[in-house]
Amino acid sequence: MELLQQRILSDGRVLPGGILKVDGFLNHQIDPALLYEMALDLKRLYAGEEVTKVLTIEASGIAIAAMTGYVFGCPLVFAKKSKSKNISNDLYSVEVESFTHGNTNTVVVSKEYLKKEDRVLIIDDFLATGAALVGLKKLVELSGATLVGAGIAIEKVFQGGGDLLRSQGLRIESLARIASMENGKLIFC
Amino acid sequence: MELLQQRILSDGRVLPGGILKVDGFLNHQIDPALLYEMALDLKRLYAGEEVTKVLTIEASGIAIAAMTGYVFGCPLVFAKKSKSKNISNDLYSVEVESFTHGNTNTVVVSKEYLKKEDRVLIIDDFLATGAALVGLKKLVELSGATLVGAGIAIEKVFQGGGDLLRSQGLRIESLARIASMENGKLIFC
Repeated sequence: MELLQQRILSDGRVLPGGILKVDGFLNHQIDPALLYEMALDLKRLYAGEEVTKVLTIEASGIAIAAMTGYVFGCPLVFAKKSKSKNISNDLYSVEVESFTHGNTNTVVVSKEYLKKEDRVLIIDDFLATGAALVGLKKLVELSGATLVGAGIAIEKVFQGGGDLLRSQGLRIESLARIASMENGKLIFC
Repeated sequence: MELLQQRILSDGRVLPGGILKVDGFLNHQIDPALLYEMALDLKRLYAGEEVTKVLTIEASGIAIAAMTGYVFGCPLVFAKKSKSKNISNDLYSVEVESFTHGNTNTVVVSKEYLKKEDRVLIIDDFLATGAALVGLKKLVELSGATLVGAGIAIEKVFQGGGDLLRSQGLRIESLARIASMENGKLIFC
């Protein structure tokens, strides 16, 4: 998506360690007009898929998911990081590794909000190693719902998570795909 | 706001201990069409205030803030719960007590995204004792920005936080105001 790529080039910053900072428009300060355009693009990509639910994970996926749900005309659900290891019976739960924070989170969704009749589109701001996406995919599988695919703002293709999941049959549409960030230089696919 | 009150009555649940569960449409599963109507109402209430930034706190305020920013035509910023007690120089930080979880969080906003020229509208899903709102207000004060007011989805008026902050001069517009939830019966103001 041209608009997002331009915005990454103008306002993103490449930091040492393969980190792309986009917290000026995507995940700390957020530009909702950009999000709306991104949601329209996802709607075009997933036209005819009859998505009934958008699923994301707190916190930085929520704004994109909200706008996506609005454009698709369906509710969104955000998976929550659980404080407790004792998971009640009315929750689906998975473990998700965080490479940014170097820890593992238990992530939960109420069984009430993912039903086997649902056709789910997963939304997230970043796809790198794919840990969060694998976790969200497992939550959908636990519920018996149909996973239509994933809509990602920025995929760091060179980290491999996206291609691994695609090879397993998951449809992933990423609005900006970064091939390389070597020496601080950002190259899109 | 009639639409929100009706939704609380039809889909909300009053639990023991003064808890109102609205996680079917507001803070776990979220109805973005309802959020859009709420944002329009806030836009009408704060017409002419020239809001330049919407501020909320992760996680459950983000979806409402995203839609509010979209309708107001300005960015939103969400204050983040910090994992670290060592706050870097480029962040504003405050302590916020959580009555739900019985702990205190350090909450931060990058100085880059709250400027003294900003006219800030604070958004949150709930207002009860006012702890989160007090924290967000302090963040705005630290930045030197102008605090236009707060837009709240549901105010539990009987918990007093809203009236205390109003008496200190803060403008607060709550879209649903609950006078009482005694014996599981919900009464709006």
